[in-house]
Amino acid sequence: MPQRRLPWFALLLLPGLARADSLSAVDTVWIAVAAALVFFMQAGFALLESGMSRAKNALNVVMKNYMDLCVGTLVFWGVGFGVMFGTSSTGWFGEDQFMLSHADGSTWAMLLFQIMFAATAATIASGAMAERTRYVGYLCGAIVITGLIYPLYGHWAWNSEGWLAKLGFIDFAGSTVVHSIGGWCALAGVLVVGPRLGRFDRHGQPRTIPGHNLSYVALGGFILWFGWFGFNGGSTLAASVDIAKVNLNTQLAAAAGAVGSVIYRMVSRRPILLTETVNGSLAGLVAVTAGCAVMTPGFAVLTGLVAGALAAFGARMLLALRLDDVVGAVPVHAFAGAWGTLAAGLFYDGDLFNPERITVQLLGIVVAFGWAFFTALVMYMLVSLLTGLRAPALHEQRGLDLSEHAESGYPEFPQNTLYNSELTRSAESRP
Amino acid sequence: MPQRRLPWFALLLLPGLARADSLSAVDTVWIAVAAALVFFMQAGFALLESGMSRAKNALNVVMKNYMDLCVGTLVFWGVGFGVMFGTSSTGWFGEDQFMLSHADGSTWAMLLFQIMFAATAATIASGAMAERTRYVGYLCGAIVITGLIYPLYGHWAWNSEGWLAKLGFIDFAGSTVVHSIGGWCALAGVLVVGPRLGRFDRHGQPRTIPGHNLSYVALGGFILWFGWFGFNGGSTLAASVDIAKVNLNTQLAAAAGAVGSVIYRMVSRRPILLTETVNGSLAGLVAVTAGCAVMTPGFAVLTGLVAGALAAFGARMLLALRLDDVVGAVPVHAFAGAWGTLAAGLFYDGDLFNPERITVQLLGIVVAFGWAFFTALVMYMLVSLLTGLRAPALHEQRGLDLSEHAESGYPEFPQNTLYNSELTRSAESRP
Amino acid sequence: MPQRRLPWFALLLLPGLARADSLSAVDTVWIAVAAALVFFMQAGFALLESGMSRAKNALNVVMKNYMDLCVGTLVFWGVGFGVMFGTSSTGWFGEDQFMLSHADGSTWAMLLFQIMFAATAATIASGAMAERTRYVGYLCGAIVITGLIYPLYGHWAWNSEGWLAKLGFIDFAGSTVVHSIGGWCALAGVLVVGPRLGRFDRHGQPRTIPGHNLSYVALGGFILWFGWFGFNGGSTLAASVDIAKVNLNTQLAAAAGAVGSVIYRMVSRRPILLTETVNGSLAGLVAVTAGCAVMTPGFAVLTGLVAGALAAFGARMLLALRLDDVVGAVPVHAFAGAWGTLAAGLFYDGDLFNPERITVQLLGIVVAFGWAFFTALVMYMLVSLLTGLRAPALHEQRGLDLSEHAESGYPEFPQNTLYNSELTRSAESRP
Repeated sequence: MPQRRLPWFALLLLPGLARADSLSAVDTVWIAVAAALVFFMQAGFALLESGMSRAKNALNVVMKNYMDLCVGTLVFWGVGFGVMFGTSSTGWFGEDQFMLSHADGSTWAMLLFQIMFAATAATIASGAMAERTRYVGYLCGAIVITGLIYPLYGHWAWNSEGWLAKLGFIDFAGSTVVHSIGGWCALAGVLVVGPRLGRFDRHGQPRTIPGHNLSYVALGGFILWFGWFGFNGGSTLAASVDIAKVNLNTQLAAAAGAVGSVIYRMVSRRPILLTETVNGSLAGLVAVTAGCAVMTPGFAVLTGLVAGALAAFGARMLLALRLDDVVGAVPVHAFAGAWGTLAAGLFYDGDLFNPERITVQLLGIVVAFGWAFFTALVMYMLVSLLTGLRAPALHEQRGLDLSEHAESGYPEFPQNTLYNSELTRSAESRP
Repeated sequence: MPQRRLPWFALLLLPGLARADSLSAVDTVWIAVAAALVFFMQAGFALLESGMSRAKNALNVVMKNYMDLCVGTLVFWGVGFGVMFGTSSTGWFGEDQFMLSHADGSTWAMLLFQIMFAATAATIASGAMAERTRYVGYLCGAIVITGLIYPLYGHWAWNSEGWLAKLGFIDFAGSTVVHSIGGWCALAGVLVVGPRLGRFDRHGQPRTIPGHNLSYVALGGFILWFGWFGFNGGSTLAASVDIAKVNLNTQLAAAAGAVGSVIYRMVSRRPILLTETVNGSLAGLVAVTAGCAVMTPGFAVLTGLVAGALAAFGARMLLALRLDDVVGAVPVHAFAGAWGTLAAGLFYDGDLFNPERITVQLLGIVVAFGWAFFTALVMYMLVSLLTGLRAPALHEQRGLDLSEHAESGYPEFPQNTLYNSELTRSAESRP
Repeated sequence: MPQRRLPWFALLLLPGLARADSLSAVDTVWIAVAAALVFFMQAGFALLESGMSRAKNALNVVMKNYMDLCVGTLVFWGVGFGVMFGTSSTGWFGEDQFMLSHADGSTWAMLLFQIMFAATAATIASGAMAERTRYVGYLCGAIVITGLIYPLYGHWAWNSEGWLAKLGFIDFAGSTVVHSIGGWCALAGVLVVGPRLGRFDRHGQPRTIPGHNLSYVALGGFILWFGWFGFNGGSTLAASVDIAKVNLNTQLAAAAGAVGSVIYRMVSRRPILLTETVNGSLAGLVAVTAGCAVMTPGFAVLTGLVAGALAAFGARMLLALRLDDVVGAVPVHAFAGAWGTLAAGLFYDGDLFNPERITVQLLGIVVAFGWAFFTALVMYMLVSLLTGLRAPALHEQRGLDLSEHAESGYPEFPQNTLYNSELTRSAESRP
């Protein structure tokens, strides 16, 4: 595979990435390992999102993660991969490689790796919309994300013929392509589905609804961080000595993200929460994803520090706007992703603060918002009309585990009804 | 290692796999990674099985998984590996390589990888027999499985001199060799140990005994799926471009398995349970294990779809026969494993539906059932006589954690006694 | 990279490891995978330690693990790596490579891998000191361990110019360099911070304080074991056929460690506890870490068996000395690490029981104790004076989650107050 001997952006010069027909055994080993690591991030998302939700919705959250992975895998194989990496005559969408059944090794490797990326993009929205979204409506959204929203932007940015790629847009492993796209979809979902019952009082002041298991949140954070070494490292798409620096930057930015979040909390004189700290490290990871191959470690630390503080700040902004993002998916994936994409231009090693590069980066960021947010907004509105998106208030109060799955996550353990009764009151007082 | 340049089945032509003396560094890297992933499946089994059991037996289930791994590792090193991969003068059993202490790199790699496989085969029965099986009796079973039942069939199917191997039996990564063998042992165990107190009422109608933590079940499912990329991908036994297709098929079949299970539940108008959905994806994984190297992705999807539905159907059949398989190990591992082994013959790429191939596959499937089920049946009966297999009713009611380990899984969290009192009533009403 | 073709100890002959400038792509792949696995051990530590603590401190334990990872990563990049692997004119400490921002691939790989090792060394103390140590005081300790205590000893033993390395001290992957160092720091911490309220009654007899979630303990054990394949296998620092034997020995010793622990418990007629069994396997892993590259598998089994029994015995000795090590970090890491370092000398393949080798090993073990224990003792005493190390009794009784983080791990699940009230009584009766 020629990429090994060339700098990573030489990828953009190749006439159709998926058409490359020579992948070495060691390249395949690395891509297979990286794909497995990215797959495992699904478990991280499931635990993080479930842990931040109440016990009565724990199963429902996990089931959304499990099924968007399964459905997303089949949809991306069937449709998304072709849209993203198929032959492009216009630079806007792919035209072949749907439902691939015969191909060479490098295409199989690319498809395997990219399925995991598509599933990541799809699953980001589930946490933001947790605890009040209907199962079927959510899955419709996941199908549109993996079949259209993610791969079309991916075509523009990552297909060698894509129009953004040709402008020199840098997004090494997908701060924008995967995380911001997923995050903007989440923002649209949060807007359409509305806040949970009781999340804001009559005066619009937020009330805390604590997650049911913060150990899961921490474990989810560790698993996501672990998987990110495949997410970023694997985006070399080949065995290469560059993997070491990419993953070193990943590690440093994640650590700095947590520290940045803690510093922000200390400066604003708030308690250091586990949820915020974990989100800080994830924001660092999201942010360094775009530039981990083109930055020096010192700038990776800086990128992470800013991202951690930005995510903590962004979470407060969303609350001020009365938007109920249960897990902080929008600040962590959309905001930190946008910052990281900009940082990849700002801190490009050997060519710091180049205005042309920064302009292209800003263009990519804005286009991602415009495409993903508005398409998802229309899509979730349509889903809301056609299959229903918001669960009935009674189901929401009882918990979606029982009403949608006829199962209970922890049937032997009695649970406090404190938050439930609060919510009941709130639901009663709604106009 | 010559395998890299030859198709995978050329393995069968080698005069004694373990005798190959040239393993490259990159092959070793891949086998070491794959072995670690297969190892990690043990955590997946432990969580899945513990989560589907009641809180009072959560520890006991996990301890069985932990100790069958430890004991199985030592037994397979001491005995099993020699039985399976030792020199074969008859095609029926190996005669050397017991307790290896000096060997070359490729033998060490093979032993490392195969230890993990043996531990997988051994641990399958633990879930099926959970919540009422004595610890010591269970461990005796695990010793016989890792020392005799698994490696002897493995010799027939995977040793180049094995009689099944010489017939051309295809089982790439062990749908039959590992999973069906483990599943048939589980079936024998379930028969000998009998159902849990209260599982069936006086009229033989099953009563639901919900698992204590369905988040563990989902996490266990994710971990098993993650580990399967080593299980199937690693069975190339060498770094190779084929790994990508093998793992792509693995991913597609797992996703399709969950979807197949959901479709089956929808068609039979039952709620979509998390436990069934996770088991569906595992059935897809088990089924594609035999043929993931010889099928096109389209047929991998089909294999998974059928496996998911078959596992859900099989679980209902077992209940109709009043067999109490706590986690669904028999439908997932035995039934889906048999189907997948057949599918490897049916959907062989470039030679679909070849009757000769199908006949050999059916022979292998039937032989596996005959050998593993009846040997395990006799073995568990002997264990039952010698050390005792079924826990006393009082211990079962109190929970095996307290009676067998003097520990409690969750000492600070009060637990509903609902299911316990139900069981007490049932136990009292037994003749 | 020359290491690939030379025996591992040839590393010692290189003029400054970090200066090597040729790392192949496949070496990088292996080191990146191994580093990710070692990273994931942090999740294992967090779960193991949290599960062995009470629910009211579950978060606090996890937060210590999360933040010592983040802070340790930045400190080791900034200071520790230079101290450990910088140019050495005296053999006692490194003098450059602080805050590296430009280097070649092999240095990046080494830094990435070593950051994970430093974080491991730092996190060992957290479990021993759990449930009564102040957050800020603990983090000060983690900074000193990753910036000074660990890298300075590491310089002596692993830098090619280090004085212990030049004597021929063998510690392949760090039984002493990482685990004993971490364990001795933990012992110092336990001494300075004192036992938890209620751990010993008026007569000095220990009272059992059970952990709140033993499923987490088992999962933590599985994750640590899984990560150890990167810890030991990755210490080849290159793709190599030797990885297979290293990881085979790792697997065998872990299994034997659990068995050794069980045998010890059976011989001393005590119940077989999950916590002890998991710790037994970890002791086996710690012990084989020094010699896994130079022993035959039979001796790896022996090393593990002894280590498992030793850790169980050591835990009883600590209790007899009224030392309250919550998770058994000192017996598992310090005692088993010392034994394993000795075993690497005793069981050196082809040169068993060589007195010279044994003498050097003993020297290294004693020096590690002298350096780490006394430095950490002084350090924790200073921390105790400057920022405070022991949490106030009221905070300890209420739980550190609420008092230090204003969060609760499981807000919806009511918890028994049994242990809390016991502790209150005990606190009241203290002089």
